[in-house]
Amino acid sequence: MIQKVLIANRGEIALRVICACKDMGIKTVAVYSEADRYSLHVRFADEAVCIGPAKSALSYLNIPSVISAAEITNVDAIHPGYGFLSENSDFAEVCKASGLKFIGPEPDVTRSMGLKQIAREKMKAHGVPILPGSEGVIESPEHALAIAAEIGYPVILKASAGGGGRGMRIVRTPEELPGLLAQAQHEAQGAFSNGDMYCEKFIEKPRHIEFQVIADEHGNVEVLGERECSIQRRHQKLIEEAPSSAVSPALRKKTAAALKKALSAIGYTNAGTVEFLMDETGSLYFIEVNARIQVEHPVTELVTGIDLVKAQIRVAQGEKLSDILGGPIEIRGHALECRINAEHPVTFTPSPGRIQALNLPGGIGVRVDTAAYNDGVIPPYYDSLVAKLITHGRDRAESVARMQRALDMFVIEGIHTSISLHQEILADPEFQSASIDTHFITRFLERRKAAAAAR
Amino acid sequence: MIQKVLIANRGEIALRVICACKDMGIKTVAVYSEADRYSLHVRFADEAVCIGPAKSALSYLNIPSVISAAEITNVDAIHPGYGFLSENSDFAEVCKASGLKFIGPEPDVTRSMGLKQIAREKMKAHGVPILPGSEGVIESPEHALAIAAEIGYPVILKASAGGGGRGMRIVRTPEELPGLLAQAQHEAQGAFSNGDMYCEKFIEKPRHIEFQVIADEHGNVEVLGERECSIQRRHQKLIEEAPSSAVSPALRKKTAAALKKALSAIGYTNAGTVEFLMDETGSLYFIEVNARIQVEHPVTELVTGIDLVKAQIRVAQGEKLSDILGGPIEIRGHALECRINAEHPVTFTPSPGRIQALNLPGGIGVRVDTAAYNDGVIPPYYDSLVAKLITHGRDRAESVARMQRALDMFVIEGIHTSISLHQEILADPEFQSASIDTHFITRFLERRKAAAAAR
Repeated sequence: MIQKVLIANRGEIALRVICACKDMGIKTVAVYSEADRYSLHVRFADEAVCIGPAKSALSYLNIPSVISAAEITNVDAIHPGYGFLSENSDFAEVCKASGLKFIGPEPDVTRSMGLKQIAREKMKAHGVPILPGSEGVIESPEHALAIAAEIGYPVILKASAGGGGRGMRIVRTPEELPGLLAQAQHEAQGAFSNGDMYCEKFIEKPRHIEFQVIADEHGNVEVLGERECSIQRRHQKLIEEAPSSAVSPALRKKTAAALKKALSAIGYTNAGTVEFLMDETGSLYFIEVNARIQVEHPVTELVTGIDLVKAQIRVAQGEKLSDILGGPIEIRGHALECRINAEHPVTFTPSPGRIQALNLPGGIGVRVDTAAYNDGVIPPYYDSLVAKLITHGRDRAESVARMQRALDMFVIEGIHTSISLHQEILADPEFQSASIDTHFITRFLERRKAAAAAR
Repeated sequence: MIQKVLIANRGEIALRVICACKDMGIKTVAVYSEADRYSLHVRFADEAVCIGPAKSALSYLNIPSVISAAEITNVDAIHPGYGFLSENSDFAEVCKASGLKFIGPEPDVTRSMGLKQIAREKMKAHGVPILPGSEGVIESPEHALAIAAEIGYPVILKASAGGGGRGMRIVRTPEELPGLLAQAQHEAQGAFSNGDMYCEKFIEKPRHIEFQVIADEHGNVEVLGERECSIQRRHQKLIEEAPSSAVSPALRKKTAAALKKALSAIGYTNAGTVEFLMDETGSLYFIEVNARIQVEHPVTELVTGIDLVKAQIRVAQGEKLSDILGGPIEIRGHALECRINAEHPVTFTPSPGRIQALNLPGGIGVRVDTAAYNDGVIPPYYDSLVAKLITHGRDRAESVARMQRALDMFVIEGIHTSISLHQEILADPEFQSASIDTHFITRFLERRKAAAAAR
């Protein structure tokens, strides 16, 4: 049994893991950079170790510092949160070599899932639908042209080791393909030290739909329904919900069955998310696996009643999924999450600084995951997430109404936040009708601009 | 349909009603005393009207001021919250006469439920079990002696119009009966201007168990399970939970059936709570009806998924229970509420003042209902409730663990609060085993005193 966990992260997710550990009677060790000395995760952990200067590369991404902190505090396990070292298979391997349980999948599984082309092939081999595209890495511009001609334009070029939109290009005609391929390869090489590219059919108006999975170390896999994450700006999700109004019970069941088979064959363990695109006809196509807990995991927790971080820890200490889940998964009601970022709601400029007044919303159906506090500082060095505001209702209309109320009662002074952006999105008829896709924000921002110009 | 509601209350319950109204798109009017000018219910209502000086008698209990505020703001309805005017049938009648919908039962029903002896007779007539006792008001000491001889000692004398323990006496021998009866009558006359007394069998170690009911204006009554409220000090509840570990599904079902029949016959409408004592053998005996929403309603909301305040408003605008509840009531998991009071955790001395630092707990399974904010003031004039901390889990162990974590992460500086008292209670083996009764706090405080003396 795990007695003490080091949390290799900061902000709300570090606090989230502390909550799960406290609920289980497990001691916690926080690590922090010099910029985070007065952070709540430092205050609420049982112990805290400073691991370096503000810059992530020197602290939260510094593997030797994190491992040293784990060794001097004598922990049994490390929870990586999301971002930072969470999907770094080298880190997972160093943990293993140091006798520390890494709370996540095995390093080789994380590594193969990180190579998107390999993940794609593995999923396909086990019956999960993928987009038509290259079987393996693109060898040359001619190879890419031949594939594109076969699957039909538009196609999308993607970096095999990629993420966050880097090394990605949409190609609409054969003429522009060679030039765009060269650009994308160059970008991928720079960003990921890996210029491998693959190519897929491009869907014009996709929905982003992802399935939450959890697997134990005894070969059992369970799927906890899906999340709709189509509301995103520049590949950064802004609003997530569960369930998706585009996923029928039959499609949910069919996809879960395929995922259980595939992930079990892959030897996947612990929590993970399988991302899909949905095309205009309602078909799902696998895109990638995120081998970690995700920012948006609370919406799944609210509709299933399962504490996913607790489940991660229980899997890591060898428990069986049947004991952890305590019965069949049921989806109850609807949940919505708004990411409240420290950024200007119109220009999207980051807005770090000191919080000068804070009123967190509460009451029925409202959950707040945050490390923000009155007089606390949002440092400029890390991501801009200040709080996750999550609501739950018996149906989408109820969780939307509760979110609008909670946004109205959420006061943060001293920094700009995306609260008013979320208020505008939630009032948007297209959002309210749930007929959304990943270009929603582009259309929304155009409508907003036009409305402002007309005033 | 109701368009605008005046909330004749303050603090967390005023904010609670504002939340429900916002969720329904209904406009709100806050009323406030001069002491509450900077309260959150004033900030978050659409309009606010000052109704008088700090003293409740001059503001929140001042019927003409409240009615004037309703008239000048042109509201359709008044929500009374709990306490103050909530069970004042004269107020409900004035509302009716002024064309304002009172969100609660009809005045005559509230009046008859307020007279405990009448409520008791009505319940008995419709098959709800009551404690053996006087059928009607005690006419003389001789009458009381005869009843006590019949039902057996100990007996309890109660004021017919009573509440909060006033006008109440436990009688263990015939010799002490006449003197205690005279004392109790005198006390009741002073407190309620009504010296009528009745008498019941006294249960030595009762549990306090109450059932939440909701009835529409079309004759339909539904019971939303029970709450266990045995953790109380001097008749003030400190911790409530749902469901009670002492109520079996069969007992729940049987009691619900009896209550539905009785309340329907009485013509009860809107929300209400039916309080029972449970004796050592597990039998329930009716004690009284609280014809209002109660402080502890959130635990029922968390286990049923029903928004009780929204349900109250929907009943008041004539909707049917079947539409409001949307299906059969199911009890899911377990919920716990700790009342965080502004009082010293050992001496129980009230501790009003300015909040100098505040960290509200959040995260999975935690709900906070509060009007407290950083730099806000808890005035000395009203009850000492600062916040209701409510947790929900899949079972009692999970909601207790989440409560312990939330209490650990709840920071209030500048005033004393009952947070550490709750931490001690939750760590108590007797509490954890759930083998509790209304004398739990007495025993707990004795154990605490003994432990302190031993140090």
